Amino acid sequence: MNRENTMDWQEYLNKHRDRFVGELMEFVKIPSISAQSQHKDDVLKAGEWVAERLKNAGLDHVEIFQTEGHPFVYADWIRNKNLPTILIYGHFDVQPTDPLDLWDSPPFEPVIQDGRIYGRGASDDKGNLLSPIAAVEAMLKTDGSLPINIKFFAEGQEEIGSPQLPQFISGHRDLLACDLVVSADGLQWSPDQPKIEIGYRGMMAAEIEVQGPVKDFHSGLYGGVVQNPIHALAHILASFHDTKGRVAVSGFYDEVIEPSEEEKALLARLPVLESEIRDHVQVDELFGESGYTAMERGTIRPTLEICGIQGGYQGEGIKGVVPALAKAKITCRLVAGQDPDKIMEAIRVHVKTFTLPGVRVNFMNCEGRVKAYDMPHDHKGNIAVSNVLKKLYGKDPFVSRCGGTIPICPLFLDGLGVHTVNFAFSYEDENLHSPNEFFRLESMEKGQKGYGMLLRELAKVF
Amino acid sequence: MNRENTMDWQEYLNKHRDRFVGELMEFVKIPSISAQSQHKDDVLKAGEWVAERLKNAGLDHVEIFQTEGHPFVYADWIRNKNLPTILIYGHFDVQPTDPLDLWDSPPFEPVIQDGRIYGRGASDDKGNLLSPIAAVEAMLKTDGSLPINIKFFAEGQEEIGSPQLPQFISGHRDLLACDLVVSADGLQWSPDQPKIEIGYRGMMAAEIEVQGPVKDFHSGLYGGVVQNPIHALAHILASFHDTKGRVAVSGFYDEVIEPSEEEKALLARLPVLESEIRDHVQVDELFGESGYTAMERGTIRPTLEICGIQGGYQGEGIKGVVPALAKAKITCRLVAGQDPDKIMEAIRVHVKTFTLPGVRVNFMNCEGRVKAYDMPHDHKGNIAVSNVLKKLYGKDPFVSRCGGTIPICPLFLDGLGVHTVNFAFSYEDENLHSPNEFFRLESMEKGQKGYGMLLRELAKVF
Repeated sequence: MNRENTMDWQEYLNKHRDRFVGELMEFVKIPSISAQSQHKDDVLKAGEWVAERLKNAGLDHVEIFQTEGHPFVYADWIRNKNLPTILIYGHFDVQPTDPLDLWDSPPFEPVIQDGRIYGRGASDDKGNLLSPIAAVEAMLKTDGSLPINIKFFAEGQEEIGSPQLPQFISGHRDLLACDLVVSADGLQWSPDQPKIEIGYRGMMAAEIEVQGPVKDFHSGLYGGVVQNPIHALAHILASFHDTKGRVAVSGFYDEVIEPSEEEKALLARLPVLESEIRDHVQVDELFGESGYTAMERGTIRPTLEICGIQGGYQGEGIKGVVPALAKAKITCRLVAGQDPDKIMEAIRVHVKTFTLPGVRVNFMNCEGRVKAYDMPHDHKGNIAVSNVLKKLYGKDPFVSRCGGTIPICPLFLDGLGVHTVNFAFSYEDENLHSPNEFFRLESMEKGQKGYGMLLRELAKVF
Repeated sequence: MNRENTMDWQEYLNKHRDRFVGELMEFVKIPSISAQSQHKDDVLKAGEWVAERLKNAGLDHVEIFQTEGHPFVYADWIRNKNLPTILIYGHFDVQPTDPLDLWDSPPFEPVIQDGRIYGRGASDDKGNLLSPIAAVEAMLKTDGSLPINIKFFAEGQEEIGSPQLPQFISGHRDLLACDLVVSADGLQWSPDQPKIEIGYRGMMAAEIEVQGPVKDFHSGLYGGVVQNPIHALAHILASFHDTKGRVAVSGFYDEVIEPSEEEKALLARLPVLESEIRDHVQVDELFGESGYTAMERGTIRPTLEICGIQGGYQGEGIKGVVPALAKAKITCRLVAGQDPDKIMEAIRVHVKTFTLPGVRVNFMNCEGRVKAYDMPHDHKGNIAVSNVLKKLYGKDPFVSRCGGTIPICPLFLDGLGVHTVNFAFSYEDENLHSPNEFFRLESMEKGQKGYGMLLRELAKVF
């Protein structure tokens, strides 16, 4: 290994800054959409790219693990059994890109503008995943060693709920064993305010397919004669909520564990104005389960959302048909206490109950059910992260929760018995999962420096 | 004009049979989809094709009338002011073709198989439109004259509700003046049972667009916080009907004129088994407004059908978004007494009433509102048609109603003061408006011969 002994690791990062940016551009160019089977090879390609990058950074035992679905990538640097071991986690798959026409530049042809790199996956999670790799490279190429044992674990199936991960973890407990997981997939509060996250919602997804007549029929001849599958689907979808925004699926809330008043107070301290959310999404008024603030509805309350519908004629103008088929995709965000399997079953029963006569309904579970995750806010990992964030931003981090889902947190807790801290540098305005996703170049530098500092801090705390 | 004096018009038809089939193939090849703007030139091309065909048949004053939308084609043969004049009507535009993957052969590459010609528009209405043209050609090329004055009027906007036709008729009353309209757009009961039709339902169409957040947002971060436009759309769509299949829009049935008991009895005499309909469309049970038979629901009762929906993520797998937009297309079939404008307004008010908080709804009228049409079953035109059908099929025609819409019937009644008889030879199994549309070659011959006979019969009756 070439050491650049004349400089320290932070100087090394500065010197190689342009190369790191170029690497992110290269990484974003790979259209690794895990939800679409035509991109299966691209997800593998992204995994191979990560493996190569880890090797070049100086890590040992780099290996790609194939699965029935998308692959996992592992690497480590372990020298001293007396030192603690952390496992750094990230993902190299990305969300789908539609609606494509709303992108200002093609999603997989990254461009840099005003200190931002635009492209699908730039922020979620390719930009973040590269920061700890650069930090480790810098330390190994300058100091020649790390202050702590490190394992890297990156996956290609995060955006579809990590279907093969539970089995992989239970089959590789020794390989992945560690004292703490550090997730390089997540957000900070704002470009000048850090946060630690002590909870994520879980998730489950399903598809509903309503079959009416065997094919599309003329609405003049069959309108009024047979059940219209779009009517029947609308009846099901409308039945999912009551007028107060509460999910009307029987049993949906039965096992929800409400946070303590103290925890709710912690959440209420966060400086979020409902008017800001309203302006950001550009609606006249917010809406959701009555009796809870927008912040609570988005973090500690479970939801049922319809993410997509289609059926019948969707082209220009009107086509007079009674359609054969109507479909919907739904996702639930789950909170502490809710068992994804039980919720899936409750929804299946609900759909059956609200199926109108004259149609057949096919209810399909999607892969990747994830439980909600909660972590003590005074956990050693949170203390180490807080200390570093305070140095990086000059401010104490907020203690917050995220309404999104990080499947690996409950999986690592169940499978390895360790908690996961979030240490990543995306921000909510970066169009994660939307057109024109971007990552701030300054977040690359913050992330690289931050990871270097965190390795030292964790070595002290554990 | 070359006369083939050695034969009569029926021999002429037999002799030129293959050419007529070839002409229909050629006509079907033109993708004249009036609902899709990229096919605007194709609709014109189909009109030019018809104009050329009319000229070659020996008609006079062939003219294409351009409009703001799709064109009209006119031609005539008028020799004796003492003879009655009939106007033969048809259309050269066709329905859209999706879902394309359900076609066994490309919709605009017609193929002949087992005595059927497959292709979009073969049955509705290109095959039917060519029959009277061939009949007139045969008479003119053999006898050298027709037994009655004839006008031809073909349009390129029937499948979108003929938006420019009302204005055209009121601006061309003299040009179109006649004693009876004969429509070459319609169905017979079955290949061995004719019918006359004494009523059609009217139609109106609208689109509903529900706008939620300004773009698709992450369902983890915004699920439960903002109104989901698909939820809001489903709420509107589900509200359109009550549990008994009745349209729940206030005022929808207020001005419906129920047919007399005698007319209902006429309808009830038709040999339609609900089990046959059920087997045909392949559903477990039929469904519709309670208190009416399937036959009544499909002909003399008004309906509101959702013909298409779309919104959010529609690709493979799941994408966790709260979508920005959800849309639906609806059509109503209207019956005697209902004013399309009033029904449109009632639906607009209903949509507004059922709009949930947190979204904006855009309700868009579509062009081409059509009133229902009713004709006395003992009208002279019906008697002439019945006489010919009896000779063609060897059976008395049924007296029936059609649930579909023939916009020109109420338009000609209002604009020219004349009724329209149906004289066309499609059958319900020919996949009108569906994939794999076809026309029977024997129907071409029946239509050609039938039109020759009808011209003579009408000359006697009027």
